[in-house]
Amino acid sequence: MSAGLLTRRLAERIVGSDPLKDAQALEAARAGVLDWLASTLAARDDAGADSITAALGISMLGAGTGDSSVPGRPGRLAALDAALVNGYLSHALDYDDVHESVRGHPSAVILSALLAEAEERRSTGSDFLAAYVVGVETMCRLGLALGPKPYEVGWHSTSLLGVLAAAAACCRLARLSANTTVRALGLAVTQAGGLRVHFGTQVKPLHAGLAARSGLLAMRLAEAGITGAEEPLEGPLGFFAALGGVDAKPEKTTEDWGEPWQIAEPGLWFKRYPCCSASHHAADAAMTIHAACGADISAINRVIVSFPPGGDAALIVSEPKTGVEGRFSVEYVIAAALADGELGIGTFADKPIRPDLLALAAKVQRRYDTDIVPAPNAMPKGRFTIVSVIYADGSTHTERVDCPRGAPGHPLTQEERTAKYADAVRGLSPAWQELPGKVGRLEQLADLYTLLPDI
Amino acid sequence: MSAGLLTRRLAERIVGSDPLKDAQALEAARAGVLDWLASTLAARDDAGADSITAALGISMLGAGTGDSSVPGRPGRLAALDAALVNGYLSHALDYDDVHESVRGHPSAVILSALLAEAEERRSTGSDFLAAYVVGVETMCRLGLALGPKPYEVGWHSTSLLGVLAAAAACCRLARLSANTTVRALGLAVTQAGGLRVHFGTQVKPLHAGLAARSGLLAMRLAEAGITGAEEPLEGPLGFFAALGGVDAKPEKTTEDWGEPWQIAEPGLWFKRYPCCSASHHAADAAMTIHAACGADISAINRVIVSFPPGGDAALIVSEPKTGVEGRFSVEYVIAAALADGELGIGTFADKPIRPDLLALAAKVQRRYDTDIVPAPNAMPKGRFTIVSVIYADGSTHTERVDCPRGAPGHPLTQEERTAKYADAVRGLSPAWQELPGKVGRLEQLADLYTLLPDI
Repeated sequence: MSAGLLTRRLAERIVGSDPLKDAQALEAARAGVLDWLASTLAARDDAGADSITAALGISMLGAGTGDSSVPGRPGRLAALDAALVNGYLSHALDYDDVHESVRGHPSAVILSALLAEAEERRSTGSDFLAAYVVGVETMCRLGLALGPKPYEVGWHSTSLLGVLAAAAACCRLARLSANTTVRALGLAVTQAGGLRVHFGTQVKPLHAGLAARSGLLAMRLAEAGITGAEEPLEGPLGFFAALGGVDAKPEKTTEDWGEPWQIAEPGLWFKRYPCCSASHHAADAAMTIHAACGADISAINRVIVSFPPGGDAALIVSEPKTGVEGRFSVEYVIAAALADGELGIGTFADKPIRPDLLALAAKVQRRYDTDIVPAPNAMPKGRFTIVSVIYADGSTHTERVDCPRGAPGHPLTQEERTAKYADAVRGLSPAWQELPGKVGRLEQLADLYTLLPDI
Repeated sequence: MSAGLLTRRLAERIVGSDPLKDAQALEAARAGVLDWLASTLAARDDAGADSITAALGISMLGAGTGDSSVPGRPGRLAALDAALVNGYLSHALDYDDVHESVRGHPSAVILSALLAEAEERRSTGSDFLAAYVVGVETMCRLGLALGPKPYEVGWHSTSLLGVLAAAAACCRLARLSANTTVRALGLAVTQAGGLRVHFGTQVKPLHAGLAARSGLLAMRLAEAGITGAEEPLEGPLGFFAALGGVDAKPEKTTEDWGEPWQIAEPGLWFKRYPCCSASHHAADAAMTIHAACGADISAINRVIVSFPPGGDAALIVSEPKTGVEGRFSVEYVIAAALADGELGIGTFADKPIRPDLLALAAKVQRRYDTDIVPAPNAMPKGRFTIVSVIYADGSTHTERVDCPRGAPGHPLTQEERTAKYADAVRGLSPAWQELPGKVGRLEQLADLYTLLPDI
């Protein structure tokens, strides 16, 4: 470890970084913003957002109460409230990006806090994008430093690390000093939490919102003068002591910072389907089989889906009743892909599952195989999924996917990304269809307040 | 463990309890409210509260923005904001109550959330007091169930458990169903956090405010319909799995519920001095020596203070520079008590320490003794403190305290409690001096909104 205190070294990197010099990081950041907008806009009618605003005692209707948007919903809110609602909506469909180093969802937290604060501060596009890259870097490096143990015992990385990432991004946006950033990181880490017991419920996306709000609040409390410990991450009773355990490597928090920027390498995984990323391998395989064998599912006798042991840990639902539950069911994902050749927002709606898909999902059996060697570019590392469809005539069609579409190493095409956004803004005014062009030049925008069209 | 899910059993006890039938619990609750008011009012000019309202983007001056008070400060705030500011202020001087089962401060969190919500809901005094008793019970039982490990590795019990206690109290106040209370507990536990690395800084009292706000928000999100896990406490990736470790005893969460009510037995410790409770034994001893030997400290050669090993763990400052730092320094507490015979709010002000007290504090040496047997009523269990003052003429005066004034087993007199409150409201209008009488009949009050006088 180089000299100096860990939290201070991290703070110095956060405020001292100029990542837009790196063309790949800039390109990845613009793509991340567009994908975050698509994921958030696709969820704009989710009823959970109404529950949240009711709990806050605010109304989204009528005159705005602040400067900060919730994309696709009317009115503007105070920045702290917008961060909470946006974090929830951007993760509500599980359509938002994931990152291997995080074991979770960076942009749902970071951009939800950052957009809210940038609109209120009327920040420039270049400050906004630089802050985003720095936030992702903070979250990824902390994920590598903390190691897998906290996730394994029950902590949700998206919120646990996201609160620090959101604070870091907001400090960079506000161009705070390293001293103030140390205090903001301390205020963020002491709000870190979120338990995986809530996976598969509304509380999972809410974690992203709570972390976004808490990270922004941490920055603001530090800016307003609240003082805390000098060593909140590395101190004897600090973050790594409480959470890291023996396999934590705190020095990795700043090691290789920006070399390369984690947003570009290994990079964000933009989802092709609004369902759990662990089901995307099976989804791609089933889509290929659908394209080859057609939509007649009546001839299918059974389906075998094989993983490495534990490869389906996140797919906690085997017998879903609704589309929402089906988001975490590989059985339903395979059935819908085989029957319809499409896994869209409607596939995972909060409605009872179609009888034909229920029947097909019941024919899917999970298996685990320790003999198969995953491909070097498998994403995440060590993963593969094999789907074998066995027909009534005895014939079989098998497809294997180690690195699904959208994951680093197998990125979505420009057209696919544009189509994801276009699908999400269906029904909104034409101004929303022009937004991708604006995002493509975001580093030139003078005032983030003007980025999003009115509703 | 009896049948049924743990979180559900807890929720059923929270909403089904009628603790005011117990005269001791009622009396303890009224005393707790008065002591919380004294602790909060004594801190009303603390600058940290201004930093917090600045960070929230709200102003405490001029017209109020809500229905909820910050005692002794002008205007009213939205309940969630008031809970945050009140939690901070009530713990800012470390003058507020502590409880052995919690290893922390219950009322700072619970009453800060509860008063804010009760004012907005215009709750009755009896609902308010019942909710308070239930909140303390929840926090204490969870503290006993979780065991000491989380505190030892760095978690701050006041916030970690307080968020659940505040949610429980607010659910009882709002008379929610057991189903909704299960969801509120799940929303609370997933916001639990707070690191001890911040002890001795403004972030420690802020933890109480953050937990109060998060607990109230948890109740409101559940009331507004947000759904989460059915087993947030006991589930495989839930609270006890993530935090409890091998020595947790989850079944203690509901064991002996209300038999007796923890608020009455062992009961709240009301502080006589606005400093760390671990220094109160030494403070009492030094006060006795001051009374016997007078205020002439020039004849003191040195002072020995003896603890059981680890008995001074919370007293993290040995060479304080300001009164605020002196709050966690046994050396300063002894010096001020010996010299002035008084440990008041001014003793721990955010000003440089007087040179004569600095010089005397430098003569204090800490020692640890494993041979001494603590008294059966020692508070906390196993604690003692011995102060020996050695004078220039070779004479020595020694005092030992195992259970300090204010702790359960050695309670403050009615007059001392009244004096603590009177000291805190000095400078406020006469209406504030009549408040103790109103609190003494609080169970008869029809509308909590009318409890506190205007500023």
